[in-house]
Amino acid sequence: MEDSVKSADRIIIGIDPGTNIMGYGILGIYKRKPAMIAMGLIELSKIGDHYMRLARIYERVTMLVEQYCPDEMAIEAPFFGKNVQSMLKLGRAQGVAMAAALSRQVPITEYEPRKIKQAITGNGAASKEQVCEMLKRILEIPAENILPKLDATDALAAALCHFYESGKPALAKGASSWKEFIARNPDKVKGL
Amino acid sequence: MEDSVKSADRIIIGIDPGTNIMGYGILGIYKRKPAMIAMGLIELSKIGDHYMRLARIYERVTMLVEQYCPDEMAIEAPFFGKNVQSMLKLGRAQGVAMAAALSRQVPITEYEPRKIKQAITGNGAASKEQVCEMLKRILEIPAENILPKLDATDALAAALCHFYESGKPALAKGASSWKEFIARNPDKVKGL
Repeated sequence: MEDSVKSADRIIIGIDPGTNIMGYGILGIYKRKPAMIAMGLIELSKIGDHYMRLARIYERVTMLVEQYCPDEMAIEAPFFGKNVQSMLKLGRAQGVAMAAALSRQVPITEYEPRKIKQAITGNGAASKEQVCEMLKRILEIPAENILPKLDATDALAAALCHFYESGKPALAKGASSWKEFIARNPDKVKGL
Repeated sequence: MEDSVKSADRIIIGIDPGTNIMGYGILGIYKRKPAMIAMGLIELSKIGDHYMRLARIYERVTMLVEQYCPDEMAIEAPFFGKNVQSMLKLGRAQGVAMAAALSRQVPITEYEPRKIKQAITGNGAASKEQVCEMLKRILEIPAENILPKLDATDALAAALCHFYESGKPALAKGASSWKEFIARNPDKVKGL
């Protein structure tokens, strides 16, 4: 196991499932600070057979889960599509990726593309390039590490979105720490 | 392993995936004669969480594949649905069931409900009860073995449909044996 994986307090795998290409991003959390461990693509367009594509997704996601031992999985999941046929195919691609996580008891959370863009850039309608730019800044990724894999940034963004969302105190949406929460809501804190 | 599994020349698992209930049927082929080995239901409606349902499907289908070592999987797969939301959910349920087969190199074939009904009863618009009646006759299943599991008959029907379809000579659709094919098509046979 790589040092970056061993030393992480928590690992989140982000998946952007598709039937032609599937992106993934591995995010490590080190003392509450997120950093990219890996990102990549699972190429599917050259595989003609539908079942072989599903088998490839299952096999590769299983390998990623075994290699990085993620604590959680975040999936980018559009809730609507062009037609029922494409949604069935997308559902199958999501299903086999989810099976790889579920078979190893990795909990899954899904996020709408709009929600992910909002969490990363502050704008739910941001472009792929804008999301990428923000990821580079937040996670301090050198441009050469991200450019050949632009399609994988959505997956990494899903993982980072999950880190932001899961870090929020349940009582106070929008507050980024307990200190901030207490400062904003002195009436809700007993015994002060 | 049960004797009925060991002595079969070929085992086909039929799956009727759904998000509330999933049916399965195990068909054994003994010297070209099909017989039911098992059928049953995976109850999902009491599981509130969507991911727990997917995990249950994956776990149970994996168990079935390990228990019966099927050579092939046949899935009943509707190609259209009420809306994109339900198709996405159905696709996920199919995806996790398929992952259980694909992870053990079990090839998958899918059949439209209409095709299955046509293959079993000769009528693509047959009711569930009519399909069940024909299955009881063809596979000589005692009524008490089938009645509590009526929803699983579609899965068994998918397996039987696959047996019929895969047994057809590729050259002569509709002919049920080479003897029949030769009798019907004397001009296509060389060297007689």
